[in-house]
Amino acid sequence: MGGDFGPRVVIPASVDALKRHPRLTLQLVGQQTVLAPLLADSLKKRSDKSLSSRISIIDAENVIANDERPSHALRKRRDTSMYRAITQVAEGQAQACVSAGNTGALMALGRFTLKMLPGIDRPAIITAIPSVNGISYMLDLGANVDCSAEHLLQFAIMGSVMTRAVEGIEEPRIGLLNVGAEEIKGNEQVKLASRLIREHGGLNYIGFIEGDDIFTGKVDVVVCDGFVGNIALKSSEGVARLIGRQLRLSFTRSLWRKMMAMLVSPVLEEIRAHIDPARRNGASLLGLQGIVVKSHGSANRQCFGYAIDQAVAEVQMDVPGSINRQLESQIS
Amino acid sequence: MGGDFGPRVVIPASVDALKRHPRLTLQLVGQQTVLAPLLADSLKKRSDKSLSSRISIIDAENVIANDERPSHALRKRRDTSMYRAITQVAEGQAQACVSAGNTGALMALGRFTLKMLPGIDRPAIITAIPSVNGISYMLDLGANVDCSAEHLLQFAIMGSVMTRAVEGIEEPRIGLLNVGAEEIKGNEQVKLASRLIREHGGLNYIGFIEGDDIFTGKVDVVVCDGFVGNIALKSSEGVARLIGRQLRLSFTRSLWRKMMAMLVSPVLEEIRAHIDPARRNGASLLGLQGIVVKSHGSANRQCFGYAIDQAVAEVQMDVPGSINRQLESQIS
Repeated sequence: MGGDFGPRVVIPASVDALKRHPRLTLQLVGQQTVLAPLLADSLKKRSDKSLSSRISIIDAENVIANDERPSHALRKRRDTSMYRAITQVAEGQAQACVSAGNTGALMALGRFTLKMLPGIDRPAIITAIPSVNGISYMLDLGANVDCSAEHLLQFAIMGSVMTRAVEGIEEPRIGLLNVGAEEIKGNEQVKLASRLIREHGGLNYIGFIEGDDIFTGKVDVVVCDGFVGNIALKSSEGVARLIGRQLRLSFTRSLWRKMMAMLVSPVLEEIRAHIDPARRNGASLLGLQGIVVKSHGSANRQCFGYAIDQAVAEVQMDVPGSINRQLESQIS
Repeated sequence: MGGDFGPRVVIPASVDALKRHPRLTLQLVGQQTVLAPLLADSLKKRSDKSLSSRISIIDAENVIANDERPSHALRKRRDTSMYRAITQVAEGQAQACVSAGNTGALMALGRFTLKMLPGIDRPAIITAIPSVNGISYMLDLGANVDCSAEHLLQFAIMGSVMTRAVEGIEEPRIGLLNVGAEEIKGNEQVKLASRLIREHGGLNYIGFIEGDDIFTGKVDVVVCDGFVGNIALKSSEGVARLIGRQLRLSFTRSLWRKMMAMLVSPVLEEIRAHIDPARRNGASLLGLQGIVVKSHGSANRQCFGYAIDQAVAEVQMDVPGSINRQLESQIS
């Protein structure tokens, strides 16, 4: 029910995903009266009749609004689609939950219902970001706005496991985001965290990195607190949008330039495909005893599909189980 | 003596600046034996003989290295070019100091020698950033990695005065950088700072802004602590560089594309001119009882000239005096 477009995007994206993943089954959680006609319509457009046996609706009367406080969402959770969906995971009726709804509420309900992995205090939001070589991962992106050094260590462990599991990188290089690369730089939180990560062992820690290193492929995992991570990522999106806007403006300034724009549009599209964060939709809530993937609220049909793919990959790689095993073998 | 290229860039840029500003006089502070031949050479290339009467050398034997700790720079300050240059300002022999050297040392020496304005606890680094409408200002960019809410209020006051003085904007719109626009979002530091700025009065405060609002022109002044500001700005530079790199790669993939690249290069150059942070070189240290402008260490001749221009503008507008008057009339 969540996101800017609700089931109008989620349902067609779900039916598409069934086609891509022949062993996938999906449960759509939300208001039956809204979902049923949309689902029937989406299935009708498909020639493949067998799809309908792999998708079902779980009725939930209420919806958590996008601007609702997490504490309020937690109180009123009964009969909301978000809570019902996460409960399906907690009860073993589903292997992952995907939502385009309220991030804070998803976090609070996830933590309340699925519980944290032992040794992890707080969930972290991780996502793939474009880099020179392909992609890197970055966490936390806003789940935690006041982190301790110990939390940053936990993020490093979780990010490392996730990157190994999903990307198949044996020893992911981990960098801690700071205002300078030298040991003396930064606030007390990152200085202490750097020592903890270095002393922890078992992590391929390469030290501090600066903001402009995020996209250079210098590391596979960028670790930072949620306040800094959220602002760094959104600033980057902001400047990418500014550049896109200037490109559009510059290429429409004259008829000649409009003709050039037609010529170069495949090139620009190629770059957009590499950079555009929407193409890598699907942020994961790490640290829970279950898989929860958050889609951008503004995701369209195709982008929401990427979030489903992300959940499928995490199920296949058993990301929470891998993190748990890593914690058991390493955290003393 | 500072920056990646030292006097080889600073001296030609200085002679250029004398041409641009007929009432400007410059003192080059550094090792006389290094500076004198470079200056003679730069002046010889100019037909205008009168320039030499407006530029002089102040001999200083030592140099503060780029990787020196501020505390160390402070101890060994005597006979360093940076300290001598700032002392010229403190003693009224110069109206501003421009340096491409070690930022931390410049800050420490500036604070030690010039002292803070009454009511300001710490200097802040401010710079102009590109936005949809033109430019905005952002502070702090790394001078302070552990700020209190009171410091953020002081940054808001200083940023507002600077923007009014230099850009002529009557009531600069001020935004506080946060992970969400709603009142409930963020850490304790920004929540308290938001209340202080709102209650302060005399500031055109529009509330929280998110990372992607930095470049939309929604505000004239972006206020944040130095840790966050440094990382936000460098992340943005990083993504802009990634896009530039992808453009270059995409446009060299075939002969046909190389031909297209020649066609569109004026358009791309136009965009670069709008976005490129180096075109807006010159970050100011605000809060001191004197004008200190920091150039990018990597600035070339033209870019270092922008830092000199920035210093000239701040002298003309008496930025420190304006901030002081604002503080006297407002801080209780």
